[in-house]
Amino acid sequence: MATIHPLDPLKPYEITQAATIVKNHFPGAKLIFRVITLSEPPKKELIPFLQAEKLGKRHPVLPRVAQIQFYLDNATQFRQARVNLVERKLYDLTNLDGTHAYVDAGEMQKCEAACLKDERVQAAIKALQLPEEATVVCDPWTYSPDGMNDMSRRCVMCFFYMRLSDHEDANHYAYPLEFVAELSDELTVMEVLKVPSGAGEKMTPVDGNLRPFDRSKIHSTSEYHPDLVPERRTSVKPYNVTQSDGPSFQSSGNLINWEKWRFRVGFNYREGLVIHDVTYDGRQVFHRLSLSEMFVPYGDPRAPYPRKAAFDFGNNGGGVNANNLGLGCDCLGHIKYFNFWHHTNDGVPLEMPNVVCCHEIDDGILWKHTNYRTQNAVVTRSRVLVLQTIITVSNYEYIFAFHFNQAAEITYEVRATGILSTAFIDVGDKVPYGTTVAPGVMAPYHQHLFSLRIDPAIDGYKNSLLVEESHPMPVDDDRSSKTNVGYITKKEYVDHETPLDTDNRSARVFKIVNESVINPITDGPVGYKLVPHYSQMLLADPSSFHSIRSEFCDYPVWVTRHHDQELFAAGEHTLQSETGSGIATWIKSRQAPLSVRDEDLVLWHTFGTTHNPRVEDWPVMPVEKMAVSLKPINFFTRNPALDVPISNQAVNKSVLVTDKVESLCCRTPRL
Amino acid sequence: MATIHPLDPLKPYEITQAATIVKNHFPGAKLIFRVITLSEPPKKELIPFLQAEKLGKRHPVLPRVAQIQFYLDNATQFRQARVNLVERKLYDLTNLDGTHAYVDAGEMQKCEAACLKDERVQAAIKALQLPEEATVVCDPWTYSPDGMNDMSRRCVMCFFYMRLSDHEDANHYAYPLEFVAELSDELTVMEVLKVPSGAGEKMTPVDGNLRPFDRSKIHSTSEYHPDLVPERRTSVKPYNVTQSDGPSFQSSGNLINWEKWRFRVGFNYREGLVIHDVTYDGRQVFHRLSLSEMFVPYGDPRAPYPRKAAFDFGNNGGGVNANNLGLGCDCLGHIKYFNFWHHTNDGVPLEMPNVVCCHEIDDGILWKHTNYRTQNAVVTRSRVLVLQTIITVSNYEYIFAFHFNQAAEITYEVRATGILSTAFIDVGDKVPYGTTVAPGVMAPYHQHLFSLRIDPAIDGYKNSLLVEESHPMPVDDDRSSKTNVGYITKKEYVDHETPLDTDNRSARVFKIVNESVINPITDGPVGYKLVPHYSQMLLADPSSFHSIRSEFCDYPVWVTRHHDQELFAAGEHTLQSETGSGIATWIKSRQAPLSVRDEDLVLWHTFGTTHNPRVEDWPVMPVEKMAVSLKPINFFTRNPALDVPISNQAVNKSVLVTDKVESLCCRTPRL
Repeated sequence: MATIHPLDPLKPYEITQAATIVKNHFPGAKLIFRVITLSEPPKKELIPFLQAEKLGKRHPVLPRVAQIQFYLDNATQFRQARVNLVERKLYDLTNLDGTHAYVDAGEMQKCEAACLKDERVQAAIKALQLPEEATVVCDPWTYSPDGMNDMSRRCVMCFFYMRLSDHEDANHYAYPLEFVAELSDELTVMEVLKVPSGAGEKMTPVDGNLRPFDRSKIHSTSEYHPDLVPERRTSVKPYNVTQSDGPSFQSSGNLINWEKWRFRVGFNYREGLVIHDVTYDGRQVFHRLSLSEMFVPYGDPRAPYPRKAAFDFGNNGGGVNANNLGLGCDCLGHIKYFNFWHHTNDGVPLEMPNVVCCHEIDDGILWKHTNYRTQNAVVTRSRVLVLQTIITVSNYEYIFAFHFNQAAEITYEVRATGILSTAFIDVGDKVPYGTTVAPGVMAPYHQHLFSLRIDPAIDGYKNSLLVEESHPMPVDDDRSSKTNVGYITKKEYVDHETPLDTDNRSARVFKIVNESVINPITDGPVGYKLVPHYSQMLLADPSSFHSIRSEFCDYPVWVTRHHDQELFAAGEHTLQSETGSGIATWIKSRQAPLSVRDEDLVLWHTFGTTHNPRVEDWPVMPVEKMAVSLKPINFFTRNPALDVPISNQAVNKSVLVTDKVESLCCRTPRL
Repeated sequence: MATIHPLDPLKPYEITQAATIVKNHFPGAKLIFRVITLSEPPKKELIPFLQAEKLGKRHPVLPRVAQIQFYLDNATQFRQARVNLVERKLYDLTNLDGTHAYVDAGEMQKCEAACLKDERVQAAIKALQLPEEATVVCDPWTYSPDGMNDMSRRCVMCFFYMRLSDHEDANHYAYPLEFVAELSDELTVMEVLKVPSGAGEKMTPVDGNLRPFDRSKIHSTSEYHPDLVPERRTSVKPYNVTQSDGPSFQSSGNLINWEKWRFRVGFNYREGLVIHDVTYDGRQVFHRLSLSEMFVPYGDPRAPYPRKAAFDFGNNGGGVNANNLGLGCDCLGHIKYFNFWHHTNDGVPLEMPNVVCCHEIDDGILWKHTNYRTQNAVVTRSRVLVLQTIITVSNYEYIFAFHFNQAAEITYEVRATGILSTAFIDVGDKVPYGTTVAPGVMAPYHQHLFSLRIDPAIDGYKNSLLVEESHPMPVDDDRSSKTNVGYITKKEYVDHETPLDTDNRSARVFKIVNESVINPITDGPVGYKLVPHYSQMLLADPSSFHSIRSEFCDYPVWVTRHHDQELFAAGEHTLQSETGSGIATWIKSRQAPLSVRDEDLVLWHTFGTTHNPRVEDWPVMPVEKMAVSLKPINFFTRNPALDVPISNQAVNKSVLVTDKVESLCCRTPRL
């Protein structure tokens, strides 16, 4: 049996073991397990292990530790503990009352069932006088505080829709209905409320005040499932990837080796895919890379829509919502899938098959030069290794992928797709904070803001952040000289933890450098730079709950000192949080400003999109791509992809397409 | 014989015919042909033709017209004329004295030869006491005014390098030498000058003042050619694209049909690849798309480097420097190549084979949704049609590609690669406006600024530009409500020709709309939006020649009224231009501000990169990618890619990679 690595996610028997130890600790209690996950070793213990491992030396022994969050009897008693799986010992038992566990898919399903059998809901449905063929569908949402409800209890919002087809995959978002339900922490319906169409109006209990469904809204153009969209283009011919000698990567458990890269794949219920301990050609580059959080606040100010503001990782879990990639057909070529283990509320291991895939793609030309004197062209193609995971959070899909290339660059790509979350609108109406995408269907404006957590290890764990801008040189007094063309870079080290702004106007570059390792060619520190995705930050007013709760959405770049427990940009417990939590709070909480110069620092990049829907995003949205890159900058002594094989037809086996009409037309010059 | 389309580039017999007509007009003169190109039909004549063509109606007959630029006897008499090839008639003869024709590769080669046989150059080489195996190489550059030389004469700068290998493709940029030559319009050496190493020093005639070459600069790490870099990684396994049923596009001459797109490929000596008359599913989208100009100013303020500021299209020609893509191996899969015709200085047609390629790529997921209730995943893959051209301008390569996708989006991608232009530096020295990339080799900071010209035809030729920003809604007086989360878009039509700024902070969007065509779903105008590439604009001081000459580099977005002759963002004649020319000058020259609302407008996007070299860019640079997109925004009534076939394993034929070590390790849960 292969050894377990300290960064391997929990094995199923470890999950069972952890749950058993907690159960034994609370004999007779009804435990509801919310989190059973690897407690990654403290960095100060992990570093000696990883260093010894790389040198092939004997490793220090690190205990396997599980982090467990659970309810004791019911959702008002929230607890956390750690279990040392070697010593079979529970410790660090903590009372988490006042915070709430994330809402999982099982709970969502219970909410749906509770709603649909509720008498007030049934009465509301009856009042709407829906078409006979209607099936009402309920979409539960984690609840974002709006100051109207007491937040000490966990609650869920349910939005109602209908589908007008027997097909279970008919798009119910095409028919938003005008009432909602509020559910308690026991997942029972508390209130069923009519949603007003006007701004400033309040929600009122459903009580004979619902208008019959406007049947002029019935339409047939909002389906996406192939069974329901029979007219499909037939013009796309097959396109296959052949890898006759197999993939270029080697894997062993969660360790991947590919084109001088070496890293370890991790996965947890919350961040999903994590990349650990990244080296290139034997040199350390990054210690840990992960998407730390994402926030999707909606811009419709009418009640109850301010309650739609999802921390998809903190409220729902990124990892637990990862797709089984074998279900769809998400990639071409030779693909390795990774399975990980989650657990039921009872602590029974639950396999999550194919939640991460690893495969190669061709990315066009990597470098080329033609010597115009000899007409000799030298070309290399760019092979890229993709580590991909896809999550479904109700209506939306997010495709998250780390792309490693042969030039020692990493690109983190996000593709947003799926179905827009919709609200009802009267036929003929318009609102200034949403787009009408079908009759009676309004897709509200919203933002998607992501926080990429970059824990660097540029030739070691002590790094600095250098902010560099390009500025014109001082101008000669004699402005008539017309040779005032010089420009230089202004460099400034960041001394303490702080947020920072991006600025394309000064070509501001964020370089993570190691001041102790000097590049022999450039005589400056070795480094990697962040190539940001320029984005609008949060639009919600600073006084709003949205803003208070999503500190990371105020600035595009943050630098902090590494702390083992500071993994999630909006804080550990986001569900119904009402106060600041996350990056800014950590920084404020330090007794004195913490230096990040020549220290173990962490860089956080907030990026995303202000998504004011187009009708083209309906009924399912073509991917919107965002990309952030990490590129070596004076880290090597020359192009690290210089030794990539030259592209040639013997290897490429491309096929020439000829065009008979054209050759006829061009063949006969005549005067 | 197939009919010639009015937008087809000149056929070889038309080039011959045009040259003959000009020759006959000037009996006895020694003509030097610089430009013989299609004079595209005036838009007011072209539109009725294209409209009739689309309707399958009888076309109006449009004459084939050549535009010709030539020297009469010598480079001091520059002339332009048009030739009606049907009537065989020369007209519009214009005196272009005071402007200069672009410098072509033939002239560059003459400059090299003239330099290397010049006695002063030979004396300079001798004084350097180069190693015995040295071969001196000369790189001619078009001359950018610096106020030091009289600009009424055309001149060329030559920079000197050496290679220390017999191999003709050895990288001479690894050994920049410290003298330059100035050549006259007769391509003879005027001056040979020592380049000072200090800032503020002047160049002085070479006269016993050259230091012997510092042999400590000799190194072996600056080669890129595979013959000279024997150590190559062998880890990359074959990756092939198979298209068993052939490509999904159909071509007929220069007309391409692919996945509801239809457009015409054009090509000329200057812009290279041009895309004409683009429709999607029968609806007009764009009239003409092209890269209109690019500017590469260097930031080293020392003489003679302010002379390095290349308008690569206006000074050198983008089209004439296009690679023969059959030479390298630039693409995978089924590839159609386009050949076009240039001409010699004598007016003899010269074939340019394979200068544009057309092929498909797979671009990952196009859209996906998993219904979490049924766990049914529906996925489509994104097929993209690539129209690509690659140019070599001395040291650098640019890969230009239009990507058409199935969601009716066009992305224009630029990849910069090739070799850095270098200057000498003393071993141990540093400069603040450049990076030392190898011993004695300094790569100066510089910018690459591109101008994409977008001539839209959104459902017709009369369009408007709508600038839209996302802003928070006014905040309630009671800021304690904490529901101040609403945001809306502010829309403003642009009335007159003007430059505009990008602004990610307000998520500023540039929409080209047709106010006369209302989307029935959104009840607003149909449109396409520009997704810009956020870039730093020109750094050179406004008083400098660089700034005066490159008006388009002041702002990232410009809108003008269409004029047939306004194709090039820095003006028609850029070589050694000393005054403003191009977009801003056109706008200033109008008698009154020109409306661009509901008019035939043109949108120009300036984008690029401030390229402060990394040592990783040496000796050949991994591609730096930039991308600009044009996306439908409420142009259709739903996702235009909804009908793309569903991705499935029967078609994809992906191969599962298994990992024996892992399966062992995970198989045995134990407690």
